[in-house]
Amino acid sequence: MRAALRLARRGLGNTWPNPAVGCVVVDASGQVAGRGWTQPGGRPHAETVALARAGERARGGTAYVTLEPCSHWGRTPPCCNALIAAGIARVVVAMRDPDPRVDGRGFAMLRAAGIAVQEGLLEAEAQAVNAGFSRRIRQGRPVVTLKLATTLDGRIATATGESRWITGPAARRMAHALRARHDAILVGSGTVLADDPDLTCRLPGMARVPIARVVADARLRTPLSARLVTGARAAPTWIATVQGRHKPAALAPYLEAGVEILAVPAGEEAASVGIDLDGLLAALAQRGVTRVMAEGGAGIAAGLLRAGLVDRLAWFHAPGVMGGDGLPAAYALPVTGLAGMPRFHRIAASAAGADWYTEFEREG
Amino acid sequence: MRAALRLARRGLGNTWPNPAVGCVVVDASGQVAGRGWTQPGGRPHAETVALARAGERARGGTAYVTLEPCSHWGRTPPCCNALIAAGIARVVVAMRDPDPRVDGRGFAMLRAAGIAVQEGLLEAEAQAVNAGFSRRIRQGRPVVTLKLATTLDGRIATATGESRWITGPAARRMAHALRARHDAILVGSGTVLADDPDLTCRLPGMARVPIARVVADARLRTPLSARLVTGARAAPTWIATVQGRHKPAALAPYLEAGVEILAVPAGEEAASVGIDLDGLLAALAQRGVTRVMAEGGAGIAAGLLRAGLVDRLAWFHAPGVMGGDGLPAAYALPVTGLAGMPRFHRIAASAAGADWYTEFEREG
Repeated sequence: MRAALRLARRGLGNTWPNPAVGCVVVDASGQVAGRGWTQPGGRPHAETVALARAGERARGGTAYVTLEPCSHWGRTPPCCNALIAAGIARVVVAMRDPDPRVDGRGFAMLRAAGIAVQEGLLEAEAQAVNAGFSRRIRQGRPVVTLKLATTLDGRIATATGESRWITGPAARRMAHALRARHDAILVGSGTVLADDPDLTCRLPGMARVPIARVVADARLRTPLSARLVTGARAAPTWIATVQGRHKPAALAPYLEAGVEILAVPAGEEAASVGIDLDGLLAALAQRGVTRVMAEGGAGIAAGLLRAGLVDRLAWFHAPGVMGGDGLPAAYALPVTGLAGMPRFHRIAASAAGADWYTEFEREG
Repeated sequence: MRAALRLARRGLGNTWPNPAVGCVVVDASGQVAGRGWTQPGGRPHAETVALARAGERARGGTAYVTLEPCSHWGRTPPCCNALIAAGIARVVVAMRDPDPRVDGRGFAMLRAAGIAVQEGLLEAEAQAVNAGFSRRIRQGRPVVTLKLATTLDGRIATATGESRWITGPAARRMAHALRARHDAILVGSGTVLADDPDLTCRLPGMARVPIARVVADARLRTPLSARLVTGARAAPTWIATVQGRHKPAALAPYLEAGVEILAVPAGEEAASVGIDLDGLLAALAQRGVTRVMAEGGAGIAAGLLRAGLVDRLAWFHAPGVMGGDGLPAAYALPVTGLAGMPRFHRIAASAAGADWYTEFEREG
């Protein structure tokens, strides 16, 4: 199952809206006969790939799958049918599929066909791999990673906006690899104006499915000349703005460039982002996004933290101290007391060249 | 020599104004016969202790010493005399003593007595252990560690000043152990007013020589009721203020409480500390301080960074995000461009309970 989980993780960022699943088929003698993982775009499914590799050796064997095999017809036949047809004798599954179209029906189908089914092996690890998929199904929003690259004292740029580069090349490569494991990248329009990023993953072989680029832009400030707009035909580009605020004529040039407009409710006046981030995440989930990484700026960071929407922090600390006139990582939440500060717990820490990388999950 | 360096480090914080030295005496057959390190208060010296342990076994043996043995009469006879009298055949030394009263004279004395002398074994490590001692001798100032305990986004307190506790108990214990390895602790008067710290090391067995507590206080704001003042008889307490600014009557109650006043030139108007930090460090060196740790607040941190006086950073990052209304780790330096930002390189990183500790040395 550990091997199957490792295979599953290969799909992260490339399978949405489908879950990233891994499957290992072991033959009757206990030898590995086939391995598979959800392919880019979400098809074929892991089980199909592993069974095809195993061929006749699957008969009488065991399939280890990280998520309950699907029982419904989608754009492919149910994986349960394939397991039954291949003559698999036993299926070991890490976690139940939260999708109401499956949710135990896969297990029932397999058992009805006389297959022995075991549930719950390494379930916690599988839940972590499928966190985005489950969150989307259950709560109608993706999981959110907030990525930051700051000085030791938490500054993302000088007072004049100079931010290239706070962190070094190793950290920037790691950040690109993080992008590849997410379905969408979210920035505020201020970041677009300041940095004109293209938000793609420039690491060879990663991000085989283009990452959706999302701009939170209540006032429609994104220039038509921005790289995100001019490159909108190459990768999905969505501008989330306030529903009903802008005239069709203002939106038309973006649509012509290939940008999609997400209409989202307005946010609180106090919030610097100006659009409702819950509503924005719901709109992303409706489009199939299971994992989104927010990359700035300080308004998006503060808005997500304030709303309790940050599931995971990915923080690169450069070994410099900027001082109090630098731009903060997050604007005021505000925090009224230490007990009210958003807290996380560390799940990973490593060197990133001269910089230091720490990864956190939300507390509780 | 590695063993001798480990012994030397035991003395850090307890030997000032003397250097922290380690010595291992090996007998003629190659067996360790005696070990010693500079004792609390700076005497007896490491060589004396190790030779006393070795006794007659020192005859014909080798002494490994982390710093050139002293050749001058201070409050104890020269260690060179002791090595010669004990019949040591060979002395291996990591580094030359920068003190102009020694500076090669120790080597000359030993060689004149027919002892074989080897210099420079693990010299870089010895230079690191003696950095404070050498800096005081050569530049007339101690080495400066800036210690910070912040959120991930570099905040030391909420907007209302709540700072207890940003970091957890493990980090606070580590911070106390850091204090014990320094001769003096420096804070600004704002930190005294906000936190009323006593700045002692409350770990059993450490800090056998009381740590000097130093307040940078241009305007003489430290209350007479502050724990630093009421406890001034138990540990050296020095208030550094602007030379000639305050009337004797204003200073008298501090002196009566046992506080010493360090008269220092005024600082730049722009600097929030208001006293000249170079002058303050020179005054500390004159009093024998070789290693000082600055613990806040944001004015001291900015002042030291601006003046290029921070040799080492000791940073505890708590796993929380405060947002932009929290108090910054350092006020504006200011930094005019990324190239002008003070940069450091990482020399250690470790967990400190839920917090993360990283240690840095100044770049270049």
